[in-house]
Parts: sequence; structure tokens; C-alpha cells
Amino acid sequence: MRFLAVPQLTLRRLNAVFSAGSVRRFGRMRLVQFCHKVAEGIVRVGVEQDEGQGIVDLKAFDPSMPSTMREFLELGPKGMDCAKRALSSGQNVLPRSDIRLLSPVTNPEKVVCVGMNYKDHCLEQNAPIPKEPIIFSKFPCSITGPNDDIILPDESQEVDWEVELAFVIGRKGKHIKEEEALSYIAGFTVANDVSARDWQMKRNGKQWLLGKTFDTFCPLGPALVTTDSLKDVHKLGIRCFVNGATVQESNTNQMIFQTEKVVAWVSQFVTLYPGDVFLTGTPPGVGVFRNPPVFLKPISSELIPKRIVEIFLLRRKEMSWSVRLMRSDRYATQSCNGEIFYID
Amino acid sequence: MRFLAVPQLTLRRLNAVFSAGSVRRFGRMRLVQFCHKVAEGIVRVGVEQDEGQGIVDLKAFDPSMPSTMREFLELGPKGMDCAKRALSSGQNVLPRSDIRLLSPVTNPEKVVCVGMNYKDHCLEQNAPIPKEPIIFSKFPCSITGPNDDIILPDESQEVDWEVELAFVIGRKGKHIKEEEALSYIAGFTVANDVSARDWQMKRNGKQWLLGKTFDTFCPLGPALVTTDSLKDVHKLGIRCFVNGATVQESNTNQMIFQTEKVVAWVSQFVTLYPGDVFLTGTPPGVGVFRNPPVFLKPISSELIPKRIVEIFLLRRKEMSWSVRLMRSDRYATQSCNGEIFYID
Repeated sequence: MRFLAVPQLTLRRLNAVFSAGSVRRFGRMRLVQFCHKVAEGIVRVGVEQDEGQGIVDLKAFDPSMPSTMREFLELGPKGMDCAKRALSSGQNVLPRSDIRLLSPVTNPEKVVCVGMNYKDHCLEQNAPIPKEPIIFSKFPCSITGPNDDIILPDESQEVDWEVELAFVIGRKGKHIKEEEALSYIAGFTVANDVSARDWQMKRNGKQWLLGKTFDTFCPLGPALVTTDSLKDVHKLGIRCFVNGATVQESNTNQMIFQTEKVVAWVSQFVTLYPGDVFLTGTPPGVGVFRNPPVFLKPISSELIPKRIVEIFLLRRKEMSWSVRLMRSDRYATQSCNGEIFYID
Repeated sequence: MRFLAVPQLTLRRLNAVFSAGSVRRFGRMRLVQFCHKVAEGIVRVGVEQDEGQGIVDLKAFDPSMPSTMREFLELGPKGMDCAKRALSSGQNVLPRSDIRLLSPVTNPEKVVCVGMNYKDHCLEQNAPIPKEPIIFSKFPCSITGPNDDIILPDESQEVDWEVELAFVIGRKGKHIKEEEALSYIAGFTVANDVSARDWQMKRNGKQWLLGKTFDTFCPLGPALVTTDSLKDVHKLGIRCFVNGATVQESNTNQMIFQTEKVVAWVSQFVTLYPGDVFLTGTPPGVGVFRNPPVFLKPISSELIPKRIVEIFLLRRKEMSWSVRLMRSDRYATQSCNGEIFYID
């Protein structure tokens, strides 16, 4: 593993979705998982007051509430109702400076991914539009928090970014009908399906798993926006930035198999459980299909003097998504960032 | 889903491994998960007194012990020591008639599978010997207990049996060296990598996942035989029976990438956690490469009169592995059974 090579994917998302007043019509809830900075190992479920605002600690509001999102979702409507009450109460609010956001779900039973699911992404690689969803997976341990480092492994030279709309299952189901599928989805968030193209496309007998599932290859979150908050999940902008430059830009209306279809399809094969994470495919603009191909890599593998590190750290505070340092705080790395937003 | 079509995989394994007195040299422990028949939802970890004998209830012996194998393995040597003491004590023994065996691990973080990993299995399909392990996965929800039904889904007409040596990770690790790999393995068991060949080979963009991961497609267990119980895991016989006839027979010395290599290989990509399940590949004799191909299917989809059902039930009591009925107890189905045993 090259510890000097840690491209940072930092993910801000669904912001404009909730900046418009119209959204309030559909209810509004941004669920998160977090830990207190003074108690790093202890996971909590929270509700954001607004994007970038304070976090209501659900367990402080109601001690009977569970500590993880998966357990929270297993409660069904009882949990959601409690979260709504907690948000309305205006109590038990923690400033963001006191907490660290985790991915909205950790340790799901499965992470299900859809390949080749944007028309414009098929066009960019001259591939036919699939007639059925192509389903693959990542191991849950690939999930990492929205502000955590992505570790670029020594084993790959071709790590790509792939922003995606993600969703999380809210209740158990098998053989779910398309027309009922939305009721099985707790909410939506954004992810990157980080992909080692050399392993995905050229090795492992062309089974995609290994190239897709390196540790940290599934940054997720920060917020799980509840399904009833969203007017039409298939009319949203989706963008990915690398070092501030837009590298992917499309609209979820380009999806070939929409979320309802994907839920129905996968539930033919396996039972879905609360907390299961789905990544719905990436739009065009990935690195591997550029000419020449472009991949995530460190800006510099040189050791950066302490003074510069401090400047970076300062910038990190100002622009939480744009400049990151690797965990050792010794090397500068690229930034990468995704968002999903309203188009109107 | 064809509820009338439920081939039963019943798995008896590692029996001869522990019937020889020589085995005692290497220590000996057969860990299981079970539930009391009077308290079906409550999982317990147990130690078998001997294959087919009474089960020591670990939590009854020491109330501080956890209730699931995954948590038990997370305790490391402390848990194993307690299990050894519990076995020696001769106390807290439950007769098998009072319990139902579950798979030895439920809800692992991952189920990792190796494809094309027996030389003789490559030969039967005229495929070259792979130069690197081919890794794919099943979702954990595909795991089912050793005596539970396999549900043959409506979505496939080509369900195959694939007996495999399986192992379970005992401690967390990343970038594990081959020479240390055995120390990361808690123990070995037997599994079937049940495979819907139509989905694996012809659909889903040739990504194997869907064909491999239908619910109940990973019968596992019954016992997790601790690593220190085994002299040489790569000199074991391995067999699969369908309806009592041997359909697969080979030796683990045919493995191309042995267990240590597989652990080291996969841990380049992902962190391994206690409870992670590995299936190490299948020997020749699978149904799909027969001429003509043969697949698991019900003996009869006709409703069987109650009288016959009772006979079957009686036979089930006599030969616990050979004849099974589906959950509804209305239709007869095939049986399928695997074992791993000493060759000497």
C-alpha cells in the first residue's frame, strides 16, 4: 500500500435539493451517523437541522433510540416519527464542530451496485444499452465516511472516481413489485463507486468485485435524505469534481433502470434488509474512457514541509471539501467531490 | 419462486476427520451455532462433544460469553479457551434432540468465494489453470443452516450443487503474509456454493454474483472445526452426494491456490474480520459440465399423500442427511449432501 498516495474523495451532496422552499412540501429529513469528537468510538444517529447546520442527537432526545442507522431503520415508522419529533423539538442540538460525520450507514448486510446504468455513460464507451440491470457488489468494509480518506492501494495504478446516486433500504422485502418499491427505500444519498480499472477490467477473470471493493472504495454520505423529502429522484443533477474541476455531469433522468426497477430486480434474487445500500450507476466522465485515460493520483509524492501542511489544514477548515491531507498529514493529495442537486 | 421445488442440501461433514484417535494430537473442537427448539429465535454458541453427540451451551457454562459465533470469534483466544474449558467440564450439555443446528456463522461481514480452484475441475471444463485466484462473492443472506431447505427459485432452471471446503476468519487482518495466514483462520467447515448456471454464465453481463447469491444458496456447516484440530487441510477427501449417489469426489490436494495463499491474496484488497467466510472452490463433478447437463430439481412436483410424507419423515429421522422434505412438508425433493474426510 502506498501510504503516500491517498486521493481524497470528499462528498457534499443533496445540498440544493434542500435549499429550495418547495422541498418542504415533501417533508424533509437528513439523517446522519456521527460520533462526538471527544468519544470517537461511539456511533450515534442524528438529524441535521439543515445542510451544514447543527445535528440533533437522537439518543439524547430519546434514550430508547438505537445507536446505529441500521438498527434505527429496523424500527421502521417508529424511528422515523421519533426523528421528526427530535428535529421539531430544537433540543439536543450539537454544533458540527463537536462531531465527526460517519457514512449514514455502516455495516449493511450488502452493498449492491448497478453497472452501465446511464445512457450517456454507455454512449461514452460505445457500449450497447443493457436490456437487464447488471448487478455487482462491494463488500460493506469498503464503505468509508464522507470526510475520510480514500486509500489508493499499491496494487492498482488505475483508480477512477464514479459519482453515483445511492439509496438505502428501509424495510425487509423479497419479490418487491416496482409500484411498491419506493416504500422500501428509506432515503437517498450520494456515493462514489471508486474503481481500480486494472483489476476490474483486466484481471480476476473479469469479475469486477476485486477492482470495486478495496478498503475505502465506497465513500458514502454524509446525509441520508428521506424518500418523502424528494419530489422526483429521476430529475436530479449529478456531478463529480476532481481538484475542483467538473469531471462528471449528468442528470438522473439518464438512468436506464430506475430505482424502483432496480429494487424489484434485485429482490427477485435476495431478501433486502433495512440498511442495505444500493449504488445506482455512474454518468459519463469517468477517467478510464478519456483519451488518454486519467486516474486519481497524488498531486505530489514529495514530503510537504510542516508549514505547508498547516496552510492546507487551514484551507480544509474553510472549504471542507476541496483540499484534503492524507491521514498521516504529511503528503498533499487530490480532492474529489460529488453532488446531487435540483435542476430548476 | 417455485415453492414446490425445493432441493434439499443437507450437509454432514468432517466426520471421519474426528473419528480417528490420531486427531486428538492436534486438539479438537467442533464449534456450532444452535437454537433451542423451545426458543427458536435465540441463537447460542456451542461446542459439540463429538460429531452427532451432545452440545455444550457456552453461555450456560459462562454467562459472559456472547450469543453469536461472530462475537465469540471477536473475543479471540479468550473465547477459545472458554470453549475448551466448557467442553472439558462435561456440564451444560444439551441433547441434540433439544436443539436445532444453525450455520456455524450467521451475518458475516463477507462471504468470499474462489472460482476455478481445483486442477481436476479445470480439466473437466477444458479451462486453463488460473495464474491468480479468481475471487467472487455471495451476499451473507445466502447462508442457510446445514439442515435447512434450499429454495429453488422460479428464476432459474439450472441450479448446481458445488461442494466446497470452507473456512472462517478468526482475527482481523490486512496484507496478511502467507506464512502467517493459518493463524488468521478460526476453523474449517463445509459448504455448498449453490449456483444458478443460467444466471452465472449467460446473463448479468457475465458477472457471477446473481447466479451465486439467491437466498439459501450457501448452506454452511454444521460444525466449525478449529484450525488446531487439523493436521493438513490440503490432504482431505471431499465428496458431494445427490440422492445418495456420489456426484463429486476429489481431494483438497487438487486445490490450485491453497488456503494460506487465498487469505494472503484477498487481504491485499480488503481487511478481513472475525466471522468472514471463505469458500475455497469446488472439485469436478458439477452438473453443468455433464453431458447432458444435470441440475437439482424436485423428484416430483406432484402433491404427495400424507401417508408418504410420514414415511419420508420417518426416513429423515433415520438418515438425517439423505431424505428431506420442503418446509411445507407437502412435496418430496432431492437430497444433496457433502462431506470432507481423512484419506488414510
